[in-house]
Amino acid sequence: MGDSFGHLFRITTWGESHGGGVGVVIDGCPAGLEISESEIQYELDRRRPGQSKITTQRKESDSARILSGIFEGKTTGTAISIMVENQDARPQAYEHLKDLYRPSHADYTYEAKYGFRNWMGGGRASARETIGRVAAGALAKKLLKQWNGTQTLAWVEQIHDLKANVDHSQVTEQQIEQSIVRCPDTAASNAMEQRILEVRKKGDSVGGIIRAVSKNVPVGLGEPVFDKLTADLAKALMSLPATRGVEFGLGFQSIALMGSEHNDEYVIEDGNVKTRSNRSAGIQGGISNGEEIDLRIAFKPTATINHEQKTVTRDGESTTLSAKGRHDPCVLPRAVPMVEAMINLVLADHYLRQQSSQLH
Amino acid sequence: MGDSFGHLFRITTWGESHGGGVGVVIDGCPAGLEISESEIQYELDRRRPGQSKITTQRKESDSARILSGIFEGKTTGTAISIMVENQDARPQAYEHLKDLYRPSHADYTYEAKYGFRNWMGGGRASARETIGRVAAGALAKKLLKQWNGTQTLAWVEQIHDLKANVDHSQVTEQQIEQSIVRCPDTAASNAMEQRILEVRKKGDSVGGIIRAVSKNVPVGLGEPVFDKLTADLAKALMSLPATRGVEFGLGFQSIALMGSEHNDEYVIEDGNVKTRSNRSAGIQGGISNGEEIDLRIAFKPTATINHEQKTVTRDGESTTLSAKGRHDPCVLPRAVPMVEAMINLVLADHYLRQQSSQLH
Amino acid sequence: MGDSFGHLFRITTWGESHGGGVGVVIDGCPAGLEISESEIQYELDRRRPGQSKITTQRKESDSARILSGIFEGKTTGTAISIMVENQDARPQAYEHLKDLYRPSHADYTYEAKYGFRNWMGGGRASARETIGRVAAGALAKKLLKQWNGTQTLAWVEQIHDLKANVDHSQVTEQQIEQSIVRCPDTAASNAMEQRILEVRKKGDSVGGIIRAVSKNVPVGLGEPVFDKLTADLAKALMSLPATRGVEFGLGFQSIALMGSEHNDEYVIEDGNVKTRSNRSAGIQGGISNGEEIDLRIAFKPTATINHEQKTVTRDGESTTLSAKGRHDPCVLPRAVPMVEAMINLVLADHYLRQQSSQLH
Amino acid sequence: MGDSFGHLFRITTWGESHGGGVGVVIDGCPAGLEISESEIQYELDRRRPGQSKITTQRKESDSARILSGIFEGKTTGTAISIMVENQDARPQAYEHLKDLYRPSHADYTYEAKYGFRNWMGGGRASARETIGRVAAGALAKKLLKQWNGTQTLAWVEQIHDLKANVDHSQVTEQQIEQSIVRCPDTAASNAMEQRILEVRKKGDSVGGIIRAVSKNVPVGLGEPVFDKLTADLAKALMSLPATRGVEFGLGFQSIALMGSEHNDEYVIEDGNVKTRSNRSAGIQGGISNGEEIDLRIAFKPTATINHEQKTVTRDGESTTLSAKGRHDPCVLPRAVPMVEAMINLVLADHYLRQQSSQLH
Repeated sequence: MGDSFGHLFRITTWGESHGGGVGVVIDGCPAGLEISESEIQYELDRRRPGQSKITTQRKESDSARILSGIFEGKTTGTAISIMVENQDARPQAYEHLKDLYRPSHADYTYEAKYGFRNWMGGGRASARETIGRVAAGALAKKLLKQWNGTQTLAWVEQIHDLKANVDHSQVTEQQIEQSIVRCPDTAASNAMEQRILEVRKKGDSVGGIIRAVSKNVPVGLGEPVFDKLTADLAKALMSLPATRGVEFGLGFQSIALMGSEHNDEYVIEDGNVKTRSNRSAGIQGGISNGEEIDLRIAFKPTATINHEQKTVTRDGESTTLSAKGRHDPCVLPRAVPMVEAMINLVLADHYLRQQSSQLH
Repeated sequence: MGDSFGHLFRITTWGESHGGGVGVVIDGCPAGLEISESEIQYELDRRRPGQSKITTQRKESDSARILSGIFEGKTTGTAISIMVENQDARPQAYEHLKDLYRPSHADYTYEAKYGFRNWMGGGRASARETIGRVAAGALAKKLLKQWNGTQTLAWVEQIHDLKANVDHSQVTEQQIEQSIVRCPDTAASNAMEQRILEVRKKGDSVGGIIRAVSKNVPVGLGEPVFDKLTADLAKALMSLPATRGVEFGLGFQSIALMGSEHNDEYVIEDGNVKTRSNRSAGIQGGISNGEEIDLRIAFKPTATINHEQKTVTRDGESTTLSAKGRHDPCVLPRAVPMVEAMINLVLADHYLRQQSSQLH
Repeated sequence: MGDSFGHLFRITTWGESHGGGVGVVIDGCPAGLEISESEIQYELDRRRPGQSKITTQRKESDSARILSGIFEGKTTGTAISIMVENQDARPQAYEHLKDLYRPSHADYTYEAKYGFRNWMGGGRASARETIGRVAAGALAKKLLKQWNGTQTLAWVEQIHDLKANVDHSQVTEQQIEQSIVRCPDTAASNAMEQRILEVRKKGDSVGGIIRAVSKNVPVGLGEPVFDKLTADLAKALMSLPATRGVEFGLGFQSIALMGSEHNDEYVIEDGNVKTRSNRSAGIQGGISNGEEIDLRIAFKPTATINHEQKTVTRDGESTTLSAKGRHDPCVLPRAVPMVEAMINLVLADHYLRQQSSQLH
Repeated sequence: MGDSFGHLFRITTWGESHGGGVGVVIDGCPAGLEISESEIQYELDRRRPGQSKITTQRKESDSARILSGIFEGKTTGTAISIMVENQDARPQAYEHLKDLYRPSHADYTYEAKYGFRNWMGGGRASARETIGRVAAGALAKKLLKQWNGTQTLAWVEQIHDLKANVDHSQVTEQQIEQSIVRCPDTAASNAMEQRILEVRKKGDSVGGIIRAVSKNVPVGLGEPVFDKLTADLAKALMSLPATRGVEFGLGFQSIALMGSEHNDEYVIEDGNVKTRSNRSAGIQGGISNGEEIDLRIAFKPTATINHEQKTVTRDGESTTLSAKGRHDPCVLPRAVPMVEAMINLVLADHYLRQQSSQLH
């Protein structure tokens, strides 16, 4: 259960790290959107392992294949199926994990829930699962651009204790992409890169913070009560692997302020209602107010490390796990496109939902 | 849209602060649960305005009336409808708000989305909307207790800059309830109480942090991919008014650690798989592992204050809002039962979903 | 479970025949629709028991009370709650049914499913449950009228072996409503009326066929694959009590024709694509083509009769049920507004869904 | 939209007749079910074109490929993806249909809804879409068999005016499968076979009736109000291409009876509650009572014929369509496995839902 997300722009993902492949079915994408395989591939390449020296060195080309729903270069309005075949099938690389539970992985919880588990490379809990999300996100991104010029940018704001200094109102996609860390502060990016390489050498891992902003969001996205934009974004982002927290605007820091300090005064600018400040981060009462949406997601250090760790076997015996081989010392650079995809999926879904708000 | 929450234990709420009342329909509560109006009323009394000197002094008894779905003291398995009649109907108290947008309220976003708005007391954006959630939460709480002895406790951990010192493993409902702040650290509670009274005198408001733990959670709740327990809890909590962030376990602090420091080693205790530490906060790969679930929610200072504020009218003119009358200087004491309700609703829903995980 | 219906225009009903009342929550009705309590009451009066000499003589006024979602005479876009208080509370009238299963009622299946049952008047299986549907249908009806002048008319086409002769293209609401049977063929109506009165005298019941047509349906309603308009209408109608079948256009008679006889040729009329015949009943490939939607629903004779019937007790003993008192010899006159409501709910839902079909 | 079906056992299908392929994602299949590719292939072979001399002679092997969700021969509890590659790609065969609307096909409605259409072989409206349903149905079938020995059998009861005489309580899968018409009455089957061959020769098509029974259905499947078993089955079946009606038990004939003739008396047999007759067709109040479920579906003659037909072009000009080449004179033999699949999908979904009905 739980392999679908969205109400009108709805995606269903499938696939494990080992097996035939991974993919997504997109239900509810409006007809007439021009989209090419290369636009989808561009996003997949940004999340691909082995894309730079600081990610996992697992080599997969992750080539997208569009199986349905696009005809003569345009979406038909019917189900879009996109698939990526698996290539890195080395079951023997996982044989030593077959009978034990890797600490802080999903091995134990999956086995308790389902009675047994696909022990090859994490099965459905593998981060390969996010390929479907990122592919679908490419369509949502294009829809949002065409509808209102809406653009979401995410970047790495912190790795371990290294913090970037970024002007969120000025940052560009190009600045982000020219850093292999996806941190647009060059000095910080260099430091982060070094840190990640050191951490890899130690066989360890580090986490960090990704920040994301969405500009040109139409007023009125989000629903009262349960499907607030904040709520749906929080769910979307917290469904990504290794996430531990999400905050909007000042987030946990907002409690340092009094109401009189935190409230955003309204002003009229060029005939439009705007807010002088944006401590609400573009969302009031769960509904977008047209200002920039601004949020942060905390990623813990990934669980896969090349250290000896104590754990237990499926039979309840103590044992020692000596992970070996390739690991991803820091997922954040590759998580940036995942974050953007999830935000865009939520915004596109709410854009469609918002069309029913008023009688016309 | 968006007035429903849950997949198998599903609630639909309705109602505004002014109008006939507020309520909830619960669809999917199993038959045979013994529940009395007083058990529901107990929770409503904990969220009721006017319950102590530090909350808003709006007086409403918020009496629950069970309209359907309970017969001879037990749930029948069919739709349960619970309603609270509105009493505090003073439309004239809101006349001065009719044509302007209160800063950081939902006035402007609702009007932009729907073309007009119910300007009495916030309409659907009123916190009265949470009555239905809390009533439904009382049933979820009882189900969880009977199923696995699962108990969720929430308390106020911080108000403005005042932090409590609480041993989460020892805290009891009684300790929480004997504090009108719902902070089980007596010294902190007293300081918080003073702060809230001072803030009220100034016509201002403060926010803070609520922490919640769930004990005796069965292993296996939560689904892979989108409906991870973390994701559904995040959505549930971020759908509460005035929330700005949520984090699990170490949350944003987890990034200070390396993977080797953050991972939770497995051990066998009394024949059961347990973790030596609980930095995963009871959830691994989105699925509960039987350890304590542990999370925090940040609430911003509420938007209603008795200060003069600049804003604009519906006609696009600058104006000044002089809020007057009763306001709630700090929602956190009353938000504690809301937080518990949302967590219990998510856990009950996933408990039911989990029954389909394996073939039997 | 299963108390909600619809995807964008979504209703949730609640209530039993005995208890606080019955009602509906409507989620997703666009803002700005002018609607009055009397428009809702008009539809409820058409389904009300005791409205004429041929229905059950149970007397209930079924007065609608709007509890939320309508402000200054218009829908606000947020959840609309409508309730009807129960009046006919005579639990003692059902005491003799407490421990046995009425033949062809839901007594046994409810008890097997839920472990016990609300034995007063059928509980949730009571036809009173349809009040919420009819109330919600009044809003859908008004939306459809405003959007495209869409109008749905249903009438009684057959009672027992008595068949009406009605020109579906000319029939008016007035003709239907001036017959207490809701059959616009006066001669047939008179005969049906006599038949129903005779059947009541015998303590028996009869079924029949309701036919419904929808005019001015926009082209494009309905979705490929599962949510075809035919499929959603079939579900909607077969969810009404006592229904045994549904057919579109020629329905079961269509198999007498060859493809060459059944196909509808396209022609251009006033610049629009039309079909020369309408054997497709307005729906092709599950999607409306702008022609009249035309369908029939079969209702079995109701299970409540004043005959002695053999049955069994909850303890597995043979017994005899002597039903006594008021019964409804024929539900069809009162089912007409239910049928219209269900069709209008499906059309309104698909009208909203259809807005997302193309990029704009 | 509308490419998903089911609440707990939920399928999402994708694919067009021309393009990469067709497939299904199954979300919510319990873990631990043993299933092989050959069990899925068996069902696909029953719906495959070209399987006998009376179906369309389009040759496709329709080989199922399991892409995810099955590990070591068992379902893992996570999303199951099954795909069939398309082979019969002859776009030129459809060139002449590009600019006109085939009568009684979905060409016009798709184009009106989406602005343009995939004109190759019907696009998403192609009956190839049902491959995903049938593949998923194979899993539902096996689940039902293991849970309660539940078995669904469907067969052809009528073709054009030729009616079979079948004892529904004795019919076996073998009897059905040894007839290429899938009619277990040998004499009728032979006559039907001749009729279909004659009709094909004339370039015409015929419809008919499929009947289906489900045995050993557990008591308690189905929900009150909207998700009645009758309602969900009606939707499932009416979502199949070319269906025009569905009826349960006596269906449209039930109106010939009075209530006293139609009601099913309860009796105790071997300590169990049974009904003496089964006019309720195994479903009372929308919930299964353990008796045989018994229903009929009407299929109109298919729209594709080799006759000259008048129609219009996309530009609104009158034209003549001379269909040529292979067509399917009668879909019913191939629709039998589709009907079984849809019924099994509904029963499996409700079996899982039913587990939440009572507190335990």
